[in-house]
Amino acid sequence: MKTVWEQRYARRVQRMQGSAIRELLKITELPGTISLAGGLPAPEIFPVEEIAVVAERVLKENGQQALQYSATEGYTPLRELLAQRHSQHGLTLSLDNILITSGSQQGLDLLAKIMIDTGDRLVVESPTYMGALQACNSYEPEYLAVRSDEEGIVTAELEPALEQNPKFIYALPNFQNPTGVTFTLERRQQLVQMAGRYGVPIIEDDPYSQLRFEGEPLPSLLALENERQMAGTDGPYDGNVVQLNTFSKVLAPGLRLGWVVAPTEVIRKLVLAKQGADLHTTTFNQMIAYELTRQGFLEEHITLIRQTYRERRDTMLAALEEYFPDTVHWTRPQGGMFLWLTLPEGVDAAHLLTDALEYRIAFVPGAAFHPSGGGNNTIRLSFSNATPERIEEGIRRLGKLLHARMLRA
Amino acid sequence: MKTVWEQRYARRVQRMQGSAIRELLKITELPGTISLAGGLPAPEIFPVEEIAVVAERVLKENGQQALQYSATEGYTPLRELLAQRHSQHGLTLSLDNILITSGSQQGLDLLAKIMIDTGDRLVVESPTYMGALQACNSYEPEYLAVRSDEEGIVTAELEPALEQNPKFIYALPNFQNPTGVTFTLERRQQLVQMAGRYGVPIIEDDPYSQLRFEGEPLPSLLALENERQMAGTDGPYDGNVVQLNTFSKVLAPGLRLGWVVAPTEVIRKLVLAKQGADLHTTTFNQMIAYELTRQGFLEEHITLIRQTYRERRDTMLAALEEYFPDTVHWTRPQGGMFLWLTLPEGVDAAHLLTDALEYRIAFVPGAAFHPSGGGNNTIRLSFSNATPERIEEGIRRLGKLLHARMLRA
Repeated sequence: MKTVWEQRYARRVQRMQGSAIRELLKITELPGTISLAGGLPAPEIFPVEEIAVVAERVLKENGQQALQYSATEGYTPLRELLAQRHSQHGLTLSLDNILITSGSQQGLDLLAKIMIDTGDRLVVESPTYMGALQACNSYEPEYLAVRSDEEGIVTAELEPALEQNPKFIYALPNFQNPTGVTFTLERRQQLVQMAGRYGVPIIEDDPYSQLRFEGEPLPSLLALENERQMAGTDGPYDGNVVQLNTFSKVLAPGLRLGWVVAPTEVIRKLVLAKQGADLHTTTFNQMIAYELTRQGFLEEHITLIRQTYRERRDTMLAALEEYFPDTVHWTRPQGGMFLWLTLPEGVDAAHLLTDALEYRIAFVPGAAFHPSGGGNNTIRLSFSNATPERIEEGIRRLGKLLHARMLRA
Repeated sequence: MKTVWEQRYARRVQRMQGSAIRELLKITELPGTISLAGGLPAPEIFPVEEIAVVAERVLKENGQQALQYSATEGYTPLRELLAQRHSQHGLTLSLDNILITSGSQQGLDLLAKIMIDTGDRLVVESPTYMGALQACNSYEPEYLAVRSDEEGIVTAELEPALEQNPKFIYALPNFQNPTGVTFTLERRQQLVQMAGRYGVPIIEDDPYSQLRFEGEPLPSLLALENERQMAGTDGPYDGNVVQLNTFSKVLAPGLRLGWVVAPTEVIRKLVLAKQGADLHTTTFNQMIAYELTRQGFLEEHITLIRQTYRERRDTMLAALEEYFPDTVHWTRPQGGMFLWLTLPEGVDAAHLLTDALEYRIAFVPGAAFHPSGGGNNTIRLSFSNATPERIEEGIRRLGKLLHARMLRA
């Protein structure tokens, strides 16, 4: 017999699904298992002491403010500071272009909330970040998946999707989750130009751009849109690109702090949505992040993160070369936390995971990142959270398993 | 010309409105203004030092965990502790009945998200908490408003609403925001019985029950539902009432921590919704709240809050007696943070506010708390945030203004 609750859930509940990553995080809590699954930062380099010092000072100097309700938009000095840091290469932002969110996941949820009506079409990369799909699914859109290759979203295949009048394009141009791929400059320019021509907004998700190990930084979609739209004008940013940012990858995810950069009118709508969602983001944690950013500590700390992850990526790439069959292909990301494996056609990554867990090694099968199905022979590996020794050992085990499976096939 | 954004907002954006409280909070930042508007706790009694001590210890002993991603459900020891504290008078809860939320406002948003389809009917008190309306509005319900009097929701008028098959009843039985009214035991029993008979869930919003200054605590709707549903059984709670709780009123709102008590199947749905909304609530702050709760500090601290607010309520009641015209009526709450004024018919509280701001005194006009309009002659006053001296002076100014207006009328 159905409970009163089961009789009454909203229709959208049918589309809410737990993520594979989440379940795997539980599995990999088993002692001895090497996890290359969850996209977790390396906790051993969290700036615990620096945060402790600043937390103490914030409470001592402004304790009443830090513990009180505060404005939905966020802590004003933090918004001002972020606006100032973003203002370069012709981009002019004020604090009214910034909304502080409870992690950048909330930025996705709030944008989905103000943009999506049931049945609306959204353009997404395939594969794409599954958390974005989870945020959007609550508002019941349909996805127009556009293929990505090693240069990013395939802009040559974008036009049919744009012709269907989508609500927005969701893109992750730097060291993408899950593939690690970075959009080339040409693809970026084409994407912004085409979206502009069709009048379709872009949501640029940018958690990883600061984690570049090598190569030159490329202009963001936000910066390119600003050039396109604002040529010759001098006002505050008012373009078609909204950018999502986070402190989770450069400071600490447990603080739950992110921010949205958007035209002021979009920020105003997001603020209304956020009021209903959680009133505001924790004042205390915002003040901690402000102090650490203001002092210039973050720049210093990001250097350490880059070094750490670079070494881990190099270890993973070398181990893949050494232990993996020639028939497996992978991306070589210039930064971020992930790389992406493509197994021979017909090898099912979900099956492989079952075996791998027996060998005490975990990864995320790639199918879940595909909004329109497919990708059963793909795998996301994370190199940020395991030590080089464990990465080497994990890839060795996985390689052995793959060789055995190829023999059987 | 419309921007690409304006052409594309979701339909629900039309129903998102800024709250009067929010606007007033801005106005009352003017120096010299006495605000009886915002429902803010008294910051001068925030346990700043105790939080600083615990924050330091959490970072020292478990810094990596405190700063890392964590489970969507919340920090396990905190969930266990809360389950244990709720388990009394025959109610049995496990950690699977508890979800930690980013303030209880998020509990409202997540429940609205998993329950409401466009056009669904919801039963709400009139007047009711406007933040609940804001959370629900995003999912486009229709409201069935049931009148409240000095004994709480008028259960004798509930049946026609229940016959329209509403998705749920939203009720705030203790020291209600905005009126300060507490449901009598009889009304509570009738509400739970009637909802049970019609198979309609109840969302019991309970931020203030611990802030009782006098009189005997009454059983929660959750406890009464447990008695009704679980009579003779011994399992974990599985009833029709979900309860929303918060640390904002007993510890500090700036930490953004609340929790939902619900049947396990409802918690599972809420967890899926929360994953998409913000992944999880800040680990660091949950660990701080856990330590302070575990140590028994909260009980001690709540005694101080009660004393402080009781004195302020007494001051406000005495000042109302002294300075206000006989034609104005008000509630005499036994706890909480608010009381409710009813002006003579025809006196418009919004007009009065315009004048009051000139006298540097702020309050919230009651109309915004009425889901179906009306209440133009009502006012919410908060006694928690201003000192007794300022309350006395504020009520004196407001009384003078009202006397002047009565003479003119």
